Amino acid sequence: MGVEEHRKEAPKSVNVMIITVSDTRTEETDKSGQLIKDLLSENGSYNVVDYHIVKDEYTQIQSLIREASERPEVEAVLLNGGTGITFRDTTYEAVRDMLDKEMPGFGEIFRYLSYAEDIGPAAILSRAIAGVRGATAIFSMPGSSGAVKLAMNKLIVPELAHVMREIYKDAKK
Amino acid sequence: MGVEEHRKEAPKSVNVMIITVSDTRTEETDKSGQLIKDLLSENGSYNVVDYHIVKDEYTQIQSLIREASERPEVEAVLLNGGTGITFRDTTYEAVRDMLDKEMPGFGEIFRYLSYAEDIGPAAILSRAIAGVRGATAIFSMPGSSGAVKLAMNKLIVPELAHVMREIYKDAKK
Amino acid sequence: MGVEEHRKEAPKSVNVMIITVSDTRTEETDKSGQLIKDLLSENGSYNVVDYHIVKDEYTQIQSLIREASERPEVEAVLLNGGTGITFRDTTYEAVRDMLDKEMPGFGEIFRYLSYAEDIGPAAILSRAIAGVRGATAIFSMPGSSGAVKLAMNKLIVPELAHVMREIYKDAKK
Amino acid sequence: MGVEEHRKEAPKSVNVMIITVSDTRTEETDKSGQLIKDLLSENGSYNVVDYHIVKDEYTQIQSLIREASERPEVEAVLLNGGTGITFRDTTYEAVRDMLDKEMPGFGEIFRYLSYAEDIGPAAILSRAIAGVRGATAIFSMPGSSGAVKLAMNKLIVPELAHVMREIYKDAKK
Amino acid sequence: MGVEEHRKEAPKSVNVMIITVSDTRTEETDKSGQLIKDLLSENGSYNVVDYHIVKDEYTQIQSLIREASERPEVEAVLLNGGTGITFRDTTYEAVRDMLDKEMPGFGEIFRYLSYAEDIGPAAILSRAIAGVRGATAIFSMPGSSGAVKLAMNKLIVPELAHVMREIYKDAKK
Amino acid sequence: MGVEEHRKEAPKSVNVMIITVSDTRTEETDKSGQLIKDLLSENGSYNVVDYHIVKDEYTQIQSLIREASERPEVEAVLLNGGTGITFRDTTYEAVRDMLDKEMPGFGEIFRYLSYAEDIGPAAILSRAIAGVRGATAIFSMPGSSGAVKLAMNKLIVPELAHVMREIYKDAKK
Repeated sequence: MGVEEHRKEAPKSVNVMIITVSDTRTEETDKSGQLIKDLLSENGSYNVVDYHIVKDEYTQIQSLIREASERPEVEAVLLNGGTGITFRDTTYEAVRDMLDKEMPGFGEIFRYLSYAEDIGPAAILSRAIAGVRGATAIFSMPGSSGAVKLAMNKLIVPELAHVMREIYKDAKK
Repeated sequence: MGVEEHRKEAPKSVNVMIITVSDTRTEETDKSGQLIKDLLSENGSYNVVDYHIVKDEYTQIQSLIREASERPEVEAVLLNGGTGITFRDTTYEAVRDMLDKEMPGFGEIFRYLSYAEDIGPAAILSRAIAGVRGATAIFSMPGSSGAVKLAMNKLIVPELAHVMREIYKDAKK
Repeated sequence: MGVEEHRKEAPKSVNVMIITVSDTRTEETDKSGQLIKDLLSENGSYNVVDYHIVKDEYTQIQSLIREASERPEVEAVLLNGGTGITFRDTTYEAVRDMLDKEMPGFGEIFRYLSYAEDIGPAAILSRAIAGVRGATAIFSMPGSSGAVKLAMNKLIVPELAHVMREIYKDAKK
Repeated sequence: MGVEEHRKEAPKSVNVMIITVSDTRTEETDKSGQLIKDLLSENGSYNVVDYHIVKDEYTQIQSLIREASERPEVEAVLLNGGTGITFRDTTYEAVRDMLDKEMPGFGEIFRYLSYAEDIGPAAILSRAIAGVRGATAIFSMPGSSGAVKLAMNKLIVPELAHVMREIYKDAKK
Repeated sequence: MGVEEHRKEAPKSVNVMIITVSDTRTEETDKSGQLIKDLLSENGSYNVVDYHIVKDEYTQIQSLIREASERPEVEAVLLNGGTGITFRDTTYEAVRDMLDKEMPGFGEIFRYLSYAEDIGPAAILSRAIAGVRGATAIFSMPGSSGAVKLAMNKLIVPELAHVMREIYKDAKK
Repeated sequence: MGVEEHRKEAPKSVNVMIITVSDTRTEETDKSGQLIKDLLSENGSYNVVDYHIVKDEYTQIQSLIREASERPEVEAVLLNGGTGITFRDTTYEAVRDMLDKEMPGFGEIFRYLSYAEDIGPAAILSRAIAGVRGATAIFSMPGSSGAVKLAMNKLIVPELAHVMREIYKDAKK
């Protein structure tokens, strides 16, 4: 029995792993990680089941994504941080290389909203990305609290339960 | 003489192959396929020359796209359906892997319009995609009638004749 | 000492190489190249240090991008032209294949603005693209003066100095 | 706890899922699938824990590979068939698109042996491929009994236990 | 009716387009192009139907491959030249980016033979490549007469008719 | 003036940067790094100009390759270690993602020699890779002394000067 079948047995709220990608934040200073927890908790459909802070290193990020996709009790991964364009920022590449299905609309609409409602042309610097690995949804957003609020309130909180229903359903078209 | 030269000999309206990607629809129940036909027919610049319903299977979709790109009398392919994120949805991958030139703006602007004017954040689930193979334009849109109306009325009907003129012209810059 | 260290030694305005991709324009008739120069010069943060007109050929475009990324005194490359969808238009492919880091937001937001404020649905034909090679920022925009004004005024002039600061800074997250 | 940790708890022989890719074979006529089982059973290090026959369809092949990589009790997948160059042969593409790590040497050395010891220049038609997804080793070989014998006797049977030890060990270099 | 169906109607010898990639050779001095013609003509299974000399430019090479894949009377393309590692050598990239199916064994076994029987370790400089676009087989080999003899005599002449039968047959496995 | 022009001004022996990828080796215990130095020094055509030990981390490896490709006095990079298939082994991915031109023959022939003359079927575990970034040749080989001897004596020492002449010459074909 694969991960998808395990998960579908008991319908329930969506179980989320939070990953903060940062070279300096600790659990105490990780305001954006805390913000994601709070915004998920306010919504009855979501459950935080795991939380990690990792440095912006390709292998560490990929190890956690892989682990999440193999654990039946983790259904979605929300990363924050590491999405910039410096040479050290490999979160975009690490996430992209683990996806089975790209979901290009998340990055696009996030950047459009960032441009139109938040930071103007600096939105071109953001490399938010999302997709599916196995039966696990993965969303990667920037680490500033403005970006986290925008991504969570406008896209992830309203849509994540729907995304999981899509991933689990038989394709009836 | 390649396909492009054949086609350019007689200037004419654009000849379109319609492909409905669905595991359940028949010619009778395929409202979105019919809608595409109707919207093209209302416009004097477009001609439907072929129409297929295929299951959401990588090889079947690619076979039809390949056939279209090799038949001088087919100039554009409009697919609807199969653009979701379930594991069975391979239309995005099947189309992407056949393109010589990506046309990223179609998917992006379609999803922006979908977000702003139609379904809100659920737009992140849509994997519309377009591009060019050989001298053939390919557009893939979701299978719901809302999505078809949006893609056809806002982007494809107004732009497809222009797209074909670009594909056929000598690059004079 | 790599290119990045050389460049950071003396803080200064951003040094830009302009590349016009065109099979027909000369230095006299290259209005879009001139427009880019003028718009950069009006802003105290930018310096034009080199200028080329090349045909839309994969190797020539890549040679100049490579040269720019290896010369410590060139920090950013602004290309115009060659971004269409004809078979001869290889600027998108040539740029994409040289990038170490994609910057997807530039093309996306440029096309959104093009759609909303300039040319409507014809924006889907534009294949603007940007990213980073080594420590060099690369932006490729269409060759029409409307597109150049839009890309320069709304995105590149306001953001390029910020982009370079990001590229040079240590990743502190 | 991810799949890798589960598996390492009890050291044991390698558990293998066999997949026969064929549009015509049944369990009764699947000589190559049986041959793989026999060659594994003769060796005390290997255990067949699952066996499937699937048509050469991208999604079906990917679903089984995904399932295998999510089930702790399956450590390696051995596919046979579907590796040719007809348009219907998508096994190579389906496997390649699921791998986290390519293992290019398997295909290369298999084809060299095929050329030198088995079928001569017809070896260029073979698209054998291998790699790792998560903590699961994947090998895809042609469906003829000659190819299966060559791949199993020369490469897979002697090396698979070693491959699994590599996948499980901490990288000490 | 697509290209494949056209071609299969009358069983016949394989029709080949020869492309010499060179910045200096003319029809008079193109010894390797002539050698390919001669080696094909000596074998009753092959017919040369077209012959071109092009410069090593990405677009020109891709235009000819595209034309070949769209013309029912051309079944295979044999390129020679342009396979080196200088920045100007784009034949490998131009061919790779046009293939629907890679055929990795051709390059591998050619380089092995080159190493073992011809030029020793200089074989690592050769970027021979082959694959299938639509229903057209494409082989790209180096331009020296030693390389042409090796590729033609050991791999292409003995296998090309077989390759075409595979491409045309229904996948019965 | 780009890196290539700088380098060609004074013809000379090839300047090499050595990178040892290892989580445990120090300069004192790095026998394979020392072996590479010794084998290069025995040959009048090669000069070691820099030497680093880095952990097997994607960003660190890419930073050094980037630095090497931007420094006119470094012409080739020889990496050893990190080429295995564990999840931590990212040298293959880090190198591959920095190359402008792949040189597939190095990995292939190295693995063939490894199979035929050194370690038998364990050669499938090796992910040696080579190619060109800008005007810099990059070779990545396994970290064991057997692998280093094989790669250096059979391929790199005999061919590296030739590789550099190819990279620097005008493409005259």
